[in-house]
Amino acid sequence: MNDTELPLADDAAHEAADSQLDRDDRLKPAFVDAVLAAVEDGDVETAHDLVAPLHPADIADLFELTPEDRRRELAAAIGDLVDADVFAELNDYVREDLIDALDARQVADIASELDTDDAVAIIEDLDADDQREVLRAMEPDDRAAIEEALSYPEESAGRLMQRDLVAVPEHWTVGDVLDYLRGDEELATDFWEIFVVDPAHRPVGTCALSWILRTPRRIAIGDVMKREQTLIPVDMDQEEVALRFQKYALISAAVTDASGRLVGMITVDDVVHIIQEEAGEDTLLLSGAGDGDINEPVVESYKARVRWLVANLFTALVASSIIAAFEGTIQRMVALATLMPIVAGVGGNAGTQTLAVTVRAMATNQLTQSNTARAIWREIRVALLNGGTIAAIIGVGVSVVFANGALGAVIAAAMMTNIVIAGLAGVAVPVALERMRADPAVASSIFVTMTTDSIGFLAFLGLATAAGLTG
Amino acid sequence: MNDTELPLADDAAHEAADSQLDRDDRLKPAFVDAVLAAVEDGDVETAHDLVAPLHPADIADLFELTPEDRRRELAAAIGDLVDADVFAELNDYVREDLIDALDARQVADIASELDTDDAVAIIEDLDADDQREVLRAMEPDDRAAIEEALSYPEESAGRLMQRDLVAVPEHWTVGDVLDYLRGDEELATDFWEIFVVDPAHRPVGTCALSWILRTPRRIAIGDVMKREQTLIPVDMDQEEVALRFQKYALISAAVTDASGRLVGMITVDDVVHIIQEEAGEDTLLLSGAGDGDINEPVVESYKARVRWLVANLFTALVASSIIAAFEGTIQRMVALATLMPIVAGVGGNAGTQTLAVTVRAMATNQLTQSNTARAIWREIRVALLNGGTIAAIIGVGVSVVFANGALGAVIAAAMMTNIVIAGLAGVAVPVALERMRADPAVASSIFVTMTTDSIGFLAFLGLATAAGLTG
Repeated sequence: MNDTELPLADDAAHEAADSQLDRDDRLKPAFVDAVLAAVEDGDVETAHDLVAPLHPADIADLFELTPEDRRRELAAAIGDLVDADVFAELNDYVREDLIDALDARQVADIASELDTDDAVAIIEDLDADDQREVLRAMEPDDRAAIEEALSYPEESAGRLMQRDLVAVPEHWTVGDVLDYLRGDEELATDFWEIFVVDPAHRPVGTCALSWILRTPRRIAIGDVMKREQTLIPVDMDQEEVALRFQKYALISAAVTDASGRLVGMITVDDVVHIIQEEAGEDTLLLSGAGDGDINEPVVESYKARVRWLVANLFTALVASSIIAAFEGTIQRMVALATLMPIVAGVGGNAGTQTLAVTVRAMATNQLTQSNTARAIWREIRVALLNGGTIAAIIGVGVSVVFANGALGAVIAAAMMTNIVIAGLAGVAVPVALERMRADPAVASSIFVTMTTDSIGFLAFLGLATAAGLTG
Repeated sequence: MNDTELPLADDAAHEAADSQLDRDDRLKPAFVDAVLAAVEDGDVETAHDLVAPLHPADIADLFELTPEDRRRELAAAIGDLVDADVFAELNDYVREDLIDALDARQVADIASELDTDDAVAIIEDLDADDQREVLRAMEPDDRAAIEEALSYPEESAGRLMQRDLVAVPEHWTVGDVLDYLRGDEELATDFWEIFVVDPAHRPVGTCALSWILRTPRRIAIGDVMKREQTLIPVDMDQEEVALRFQKYALISAAVTDASGRLVGMITVDDVVHIIQEEAGEDTLLLSGAGDGDINEPVVESYKARVRWLVANLFTALVASSIIAAFEGTIQRMVALATLMPIVAGVGGNAGTQTLAVTVRAMATNQLTQSNTARAIWREIRVALLNGGTIAAIIGVGVSVVFANGALGAVIAAAMMTNIVIAGLAGVAVPVALERMRADPAVASSIFVTMTTDSIGFLAFLGLATAAGLTG
C-alpha cells in the first residue's frame, strides 16, 4: 500500500472532529462560537480549517445553530464545504433560506449530485417559478427522474424512492450477476439488496448481497433470492412506508407502480428520519403545536398555534358556563371556588395519561378493532385504582383542613367520577376520531380536556349543591 | 429450474396473508376472530392453516390482539409456528406470559436460534433463577455470548449488538475476502458491511458489500474501505446509539470495548424500533403515563400513573391556595370564579405547546446551549402574538357579555401575562431540568402547568382586586 500517510491524516482529522462534539454528538457551543468568531473576523481560512473535518450532518447542524442573519455569511466563508450532502441534511427552513441566496444553476448542480429522493426533497420546497428554472438547468436524465418523482403526491413513496437500483432477470446465475455488477460503471454505488424481475419488469424476489457473496457462481439467482417480498406501492403514504419497514425489519424494499412494475427502491436510511418524525409528531399534535420546528418562522408558528388556542378558548367557555350555573352555590360557600380547579386539573391529567397511551398504541398499530373493548376495560380498571387513591387523599385532606366531612366526601366522589370519566374519554375520543378517519392525535386532547373540566366542575359543584352543603 | 411449482405456492400463500391485513398492515378483526374461533372449537388444523402464511411479525401481532387468557391456548394450537422469530417480535409483556408456560429447555432452544441481541432480549426479562436454568440448558458457545451480553448495563450497546460479524485484516485483497466469505460455513448469513481490523482487532475501516462486489479481486481491502467510521462504545446508551445511526445514516456500526477492540456489530434493523420507541416516549413521559404499553399489567400502570397524579394533586394545591387568598374578592364578584379557569386553561395549553416543541428539539439534538437564548426569544415573540390575539378575543367578549369594560380589560391583561409566562416556562423548565442532568420530558409538564395555573389565577384575581372591580 502506497498511501500510509493518508489514513493517518484522515484519522487525525476525524479525531479533531470528534473533539468538537459533546458526548451526545452535538457540536460544542465553544466550537460553534469559534467558527462564528472567525467568520466575523473575516478569517476565512481558520473557519474553513475548523469546519473541514466535520461530517456533512454536523456541518448542517452548524448552520442550524447559527443565528438566521449570519447563515449566509457562514456559507460564503466555508464555500465548497457546503456541498450537496450538507444540503441533504439541512433542516427544511434553514435550507430554504440558504437556497434563496443561490441561483438556479447552483441549485441544479447540488441536486444533480444527490440521489433522486434527496434532490426531490430540495426541489419540492421551491416555489413553482424557481422549480421550473432549476429543472431547466439540469441534465435531461436527472430532470426526467425528478419531474417524475414530483408527479407523485407529497409524502408518498414515489417522492421517497431512488431510481438507481440493481434489477436482474430471474434466469441469470450468481456468476452473471457478479459479472454485471463488476462491469457496469453507471450503477449506484451503495445498495444492500438486488431485485429480481420478470420480463415485464415486475419484482419476483429480493436477494441480499451477502447471499450472493456466499453462493457458488453457477447457481441461478432465482434459487438464492427470497420470494416473499414486501412491496411498496408508489402512492403509499410515507408514514405507512415507515411502519412497514419497521414491522418487517427491512433494509430496502422495491417500489411498484399500479401495474406492478418495479419503478424504484427505498432504503432504510431514507426511512429512519421519517420513523423518528412520525413517532415524535404525536407529542406536538397532542398539544396543537403544529410542525413544532424551532427553525420555523415565528409568524407560521403563531398561525399554527393560535388556531388551537382559540379552539381551546371556546371549549373553556363550556366549562365556564357550567360554573356560572352554580354561582349561587359558590356565593354561599366560596371554598368551592378554591377547590374546584383541583378536581378539574387532576382529572385532566388522568385523561391526558390515557390519551397518550391510546394514541401511541394506535400509532404503532397495537390497538385495533380486535382489542379496543379490552383496552377500554383496562383503562377503566386503572382509573378505578387511580381514582380510589386520589379520592381518598383529597377526601381525607379536605375533611381535616376544612373540618367538614361532608365537603371531603363530596370532593372525593367528584374526583372519583372525574378520573373514571377521564379514563373513558381518553380511549373513546381517539378511537371515535379514528373511526371517522381523522388523525386521533390532532383534536383528541381538546375534547378530553373539555370533558374533564366540565365533568370536574359539574360533579363537584353539583354534588355540593345536592348534598345541601351550602344550605 | 426445477421448482416452478414452489414459487407459485409461495406466492399464493403470500397473497392469502396479504388479504388478512388491512391497508395499514394490521391484522383484520375478522381474521383474528376466525383464528380464535377455530382454536375454541379445537379445530387445530384450520387454525394452523390460517396462521401458517403469516410473517413472524404478524403472528406476534396475533398474540397481542388475543385476550390474555386465551394466548397459551392459541400457542398450543398453532404449535411449531410459534418459532424463535415470533418470540423475537413479541411485546415484552406478552412474551413473558408465554415464556412462563415453557420449560427451560424450550426457552434455551428458542434463544439458540436467534441472534445474540434477540436472545438477550428474551433472557434478560426472566427472573434470576429461570435465567440460570435456561443458560445451563444452552450450548457453551451461545451461553458464553449471552452471559457476556448480560454483563453490560441494560439498554446499552452491549445488549443490542450481535457477535456474528465479518472482520478481516487490512492486508487482505478483495479476492481474499471473497474466498473467505464463500468458504466459511459458520458465518452469519445476513450482513451488509464487513469490518477491517488491525492486528490488535481494533476496527480501522468499514466496507459495504456493494463496494466489494464492484472492485477487482487484486485490490487491497484497505484501499476500498471507508476509514471514517462511526464507532459505538459498548457501554453507550441505546438512545444515543439510535441518534447516532439516524444522524449519520448508518446501516451497521462496529461496537468497541474500552481498549478499542471490535466486540460486536449493531445493524440498523435492531435500532429502528428504538428510534421509534424513544421518539414516541416523550408523549408518554410528558403525561406521566410511564411505559404506556397497553399490554402492561393494570397494577403496574396504576403504580406508574398514580405517582404522577399525586404529584399533580399537590401542585394543584399551590394554585388552590392562590385562589383562597382572594376569597373575599370572589365573594363580592362571583363571576370571577366563572372566568378564572379560562385564563388558567388557555395559558396551560400555550405552555404545553412550547413545552412540546422544546422537548422535541432537545430529543433530536436541535436545541443546544448555542441556540437556547434564541429559542427563548423566539417563543416570547410567538407568545406575544398568541397572547395579543387571545386577549383581544376574550377581552372584547367579556366586556360585551358582562357589560363591564373594566372586567374585559382585566381578563385581557391577565391572559396576555399568562401566555407570555407560559412561553417562558415552556422553554426554561425543560432547559433547567436538562442542565441538572434530568430528563426534560419527565417532570416538565407538572412544573409548567403549576406555573400557568398559579399565574393565571394570580394575575386575573390580583388585577381584578387592584383595579377595584369589586369595590
